[in-house]
This record gives sequence, C-alpha cells and structure tokens, in this order.
Amino acid sequence: MVNSSASRAPAPSAPSDGAQAHLPGFADVAAAYTRLAGTVVRTPLVRADALDAAAGRPVFVKAECLQRTGSFKYRGASNRIMQLSAVERAAGVVAFSSGNHAQGVAAAAREAGIAATIVMPRDAPHVKVNGVRASGADIVFMDRQSEDREAIAQAIAQERGAVLIPSYDDPHVIAGQGTAGIECAEQLKALGIVPQALVTCTGGGGLTAGLALAWEELCPVAKIYGAEPEGFDDHRRSFAAGKRLRNARLGGSICDALMTPEPGRLTFAINKTRVQDALAADDNAVRAAMRFAFDHLKIVLEPGGAMALAVTLKGLVPGDGPLCVLATGGNVDAEKFARIIAKPD
Amino acid sequence: MVNSSASRAPAPSAPSDGAQAHLPGFADVAAAYTRLAGTVVRTPLVRADALDAAAGRPVFVKAECLQRTGSFKYRGASNRIMQLSAVERAAGVVAFSSGNHAQGVAAAAREAGIAATIVMPRDAPHVKVNGVRASGADIVFMDRQSEDREAIAQAIAQERGAVLIPSYDDPHVIAGQGTAGIECAEQLKALGIVPQALVTCTGGGGLTAGLALAWEELCPVAKIYGAEPEGFDDHRRSFAAGKRLRNARLGGSICDALMTPEPGRLTFAINKTRVQDALAADDNAVRAAMRFAFDHLKIVLEPGGAMALAVTLKGLVPGDGPLCVLATGGNVDAEKFARIIAKPD
Repeated sequence: MVNSSASRAPAPSAPSDGAQAHLPGFADVAAAYTRLAGTVVRTPLVRADALDAAAGRPVFVKAECLQRTGSFKYRGASNRIMQLSAVERAAGVVAFSSGNHAQGVAAAAREAGIAATIVMPRDAPHVKVNGVRASGADIVFMDRQSEDREAIAQAIAQERGAVLIPSYDDPHVIAGQGTAGIECAEQLKALGIVPQALVTCTGGGGLTAGLALAWEELCPVAKIYGAEPEGFDDHRRSFAAGKRLRNARLGGSICDALMTPEPGRLTFAINKTRVQDALAADDNAVRAAMRFAFDHLKIVLEPGGAMALAVTLKGLVPGDGPLCVLATGGNVDAEKFARIIAKPD
Repeated sequence: MVNSSASRAPAPSAPSDGAQAHLPGFADVAAAYTRLAGTVVRTPLVRADALDAAAGRPVFVKAECLQRTGSFKYRGASNRIMQLSAVERAAGVVAFSSGNHAQGVAAAAREAGIAATIVMPRDAPHVKVNGVRASGADIVFMDRQSEDREAIAQAIAQERGAVLIPSYDDPHVIAGQGTAGIECAEQLKALGIVPQALVTCTGGGGLTAGLALAWEELCPVAKIYGAEPEGFDDHRRSFAAGKRLRNARLGGSICDALMTPEPGRLTFAINKTRVQDALAADDNAVRAAMRFAFDHLKIVLEPGGAMALAVTLKGLVPGDGPLCVLATGGNVDAEKFARIIAKPD
C-alpha cells in the first residue's frame, strides 16, 4: 500500500477517493494536531482506583466522550473540512455515518459555514439524529441492512459536486483521529507514566490507525490493541488472515457505532503492521462497562464507546503495566442508558 | 474574623477547632495547589453548543465529578491530611459528611496509610457509603434530622485523640478546594477567555470560599455566585442579612450534599465580602440539569453537583460574557439517576 517512489504521491489535500489517497504518516498526524489546537477539546485522562483494581494494572481512560459532539469523530471531520479548497467549500460536503461521524461532520461544516448532507441509517439513536439536526445539516435516511449507504452518499456527492467525507478511509480523517493519540501520549508523559499498551474500539479502523501512527512515534514500546463486538470481529479475523475479511452480519449488536462491514483499505494497510491484535467482547460485557463508567468514572458512554473498557474489564488485554483505554463516545439515548445502568450487575 | 496583630495567629497546621483557626488567603490556596499537584486530577473544562445556546453566553463547565472519589472534596481532604504531624497521623482522622467529604477523607487517609472513621447519615446514597467502605474506613451511621453529626464526630475524635477534619470550616480544607479555582482560571486563560462570572453550588461554603480566594487574585473582574436548593437558601438569606442564618429544615431536598444547617463560620467570613449573591433553584430544575449534562456534556452529575448548572440553565446568573460553572460531584445511585434521565423533559 505504501506509494513507491516512482508512483504519484498525492498531497494530503488531494481528493480522497481511495484510488488516489496516500497513506498518512506521523507527520500528517502532527500537522493535524497543530491545525486542530483550540478547535478540539483536549479531553482528560480519567482514573479510578476501582478500575486499577479490576484490571490489575494502572489504567488511564482517554475520555473522548467529552469531545465536542460527544465523540472523537469531530477530530477527523474538522481536519478534513479545514483543508477544503474554496471551490470545495462552495459545493458543500456529504457523509455517511451511523451517527458520530455524522455529528462531527455536521458541526465542523457549520463552523466552516458550508452545507452538509448526511446519510444515516434509519435505526440510528435519536440523540445522534438530533445532534446532526441541531447543526443544521440535511439528513437522508437509509436502511442499514438492505441499502449501501456509501453508494447513496457517493451518488449525492456526484450529483451536487460535493466532497464526500468518508468516516474512516481517508488520510485526513485518519490523521485527525490520531490527534487523540498525541494528546494522551503527552498527558501520560506529563504524569511520568510509560504506557505498555493502548486499547481502542475498532469499527472501520480510522481511530485505531491514527492512534497507531501517533504511538509508533511517541510511545514505541506500547502494544496497540483493537476492540470490537463479538460477531463483528472483522479486524481480529483480518489480522489473522493477513487480508481484509467481511463481517457476516450488518446488524444485531448494541454497538451501533461499530457495525462496519469490513476494515477500511487505507486503515487496514496502516493497522496490519502496527496493531498487535483485536479483542472482542459481547453485549453484556459492554453493558457492564457502561455501568462501570457510570459508577466509577462519572462519564456517559454509548455501547460502542465502552467497547475498549469492556475488553479491559474482562481481562482480555495481554501484558501488564500502565494501560491507556480509549472511551470514544457518549451518544446514547437516555432511555437505553437508564435501562442499562439500572440493571443490577 | 481576621486575627488582629496582637492575637495569636496559629500556623495553618494548627488544629482547626474553629476558635483558633485563621482565615486562609490566596497564598494558602497557591501552596495547596503546589502540594496537590500530581495527587488530584486536573479536571477538564467541558463545553457544549447547546449549553451556550441555552445560557445565551459562553459557558465552561469545570467537571469536578471527574475528580478522584467523584467530587471536589478529595482536594480539601488531601490538603488537610498531607499536613498532619507524625503524632496526628498515628492517631488517625475522623470526619462527618453526607458522603462526598467522607469519600475524599477515606481515600486520602488510605493513601497516607492512616486510619479514618467517618460519621455518615443513614440516608446517604449507597454509592457514597460503598465508596467510603472501599477505601477501608470505619463508618458510624447517624440520623440526619435528629442527631448532631458534628457532636458525634467530635466525641469520637476526643475519645481516640484523632484529628477531626471538618467538611468545610477549616482553613486547609478551604485552601484545598480553592485549587479547583486556580486550575479553571489557568485553563480559561490558556483558551484566551476572560470570565465574567463563576457559579458554584454552596453547602457549607468551603468550595465557594476557596474559589473566591483564588479568583479574587486571578480573575478579579469576575463576579462569584453561589447556588443552593430552594428551601436551603441559607447563604442567600445570610448575605442579605449580613450574618449567618440557619435553614428551617435539615432534609427534604434531592441535593443530599447541600443540606447543611447554616454557612460555616470561616467560610462566611470569606464569602460575605467576596460572593455577589447566592441563587436558588428547585429539585425539578436540578433534575433537568442532570439530564442536560447527560445529553450534552456526557458527564454524570449527582443532584447537588448539578445545582450550579441548574441556576445557569434557568437563566438566573446575572450579566453576560463567559461564565464558569462548577459541576461538583457525580456520586448518585444508578437507579435514581436512571429515573431522572429517563423522565421526558
């Protein structure tokens, strides 16, 4: 996947249509970090004695649920939108997303003063649909299982001449998500902590790739792990096979944010050599992690946002020593959250 | 209240029995800030577009619910315990508290390797009782309405020769709470924001006093407001009267952390000249603020911890321009939280 010296290596601002897109590196993540300073929230590392006790190691939770729009997706969306040309800005942007990328793109587009159209599954949580609406974006609904949201979004983009902002398979988006990795590396360093591992939820693999690029440079000792719902363990199987494999299903997990069909092309090219493995836990482990985060960390996590914490609490992350856990999103409907936390564990 | 030059001015490490205790100043808060660096969590300022829109001004929420033990109380408890003498350490500490100060003292005592006994009301939330138990402290239960918890705690302290750590009326505790004020002043400055006002919940007034001392030095333009439950507006009435007045009731608010009988002696001496006014809102406004924090800030707030946000959302904070809101605690039982957020607003 790495461009040979003979091939054309498009600049990061080239249209990211997949065929032309280059693989981002640490320099792109570092540039995004500078670009996004003051735009993104520098989210905290939170801790709890009970978490260290449960995991048997010091655990630092990067609370990206406290990011603007309630998830890390705002980072990648902002990094892409801030690099649009004047012509591209005039034509607006299109995105397809189960909800968090949708909200990130909608908010970043509003700040840039450009039009946004978002293709969302009909079963997206109300809180995510409302978040997109509040940012003034147009929404086109589709069926998660029977329709191809990427194809719908591409058709809209083509029709309007708008720029499609993929939710993960884009160098700018990957670089933007990686800024969370620079932040937590810096935060751990300031605490005098040398992390031994990082675990993050993995949907399309964009955040994972960005984090892996950042930590390869800043925390080279640490091992990187993905985390995905059982039954949606495309990364685990793909890493084992050495090639991208699809999930059998496209629905049926409470982790609405993590039901992507397969690893991204760019993201897998980055992750396959940098990510140790992907770990998986079931919906019950995710519910327990949401309840744990409520009880001990005082943060609101949506199911997908609690995936990395779930595998941590299950003791699935190999090794010992300080562990950094990404808590990636908090956009969950109140009624669902109430049912989950009120259930005795 | 200020010691005259002729009277004995005890050092900050003298027993804080009220009669001898001096009034802390900014220098004490600054010393606590240095002392607690690395021990306390530097909690983030969180924001949401929806909050700015609702308040009609830029709002920055200092999320002290993310502090260790789930509330700001850990700051003051640690600052007191870190200054105990070897003899005092051997005798252990005693505290009375509805739960957050209890957890703060219990956790700080465990870290210091000293024994702690906590006097708690029988109706304290389970999450707070469990937090104290998890830190290995002894608990003595009492009845909130018919018994005098301060007297019980003093009797235990006397019997054991232990040091009583008051939950607010102590110079070290006030100085410790004030470190949250230095942090948010620095965080706002780093963002280029000049705050015009700060609003915080007010129980005994210890946090309010610490914040007022910090901001008098660091953000002198800003006006400081307290926030308390309707029916427990002792600070509002005391400010108006120029002297400490008691609440008529000792129970009956959902804000279990804010049902103190009257302003503290030391805290009122600090606050009466530095705090503009105290604002009050009812339990329904507090529930709405908890739901708002869930929806838009992704943080868990207990009722008392949402008090300042409640008066902000009700539009009760005078003036305009950037506003800093203290979100002080997140220790609420899951079943109660679930009932509150699931209720349609």
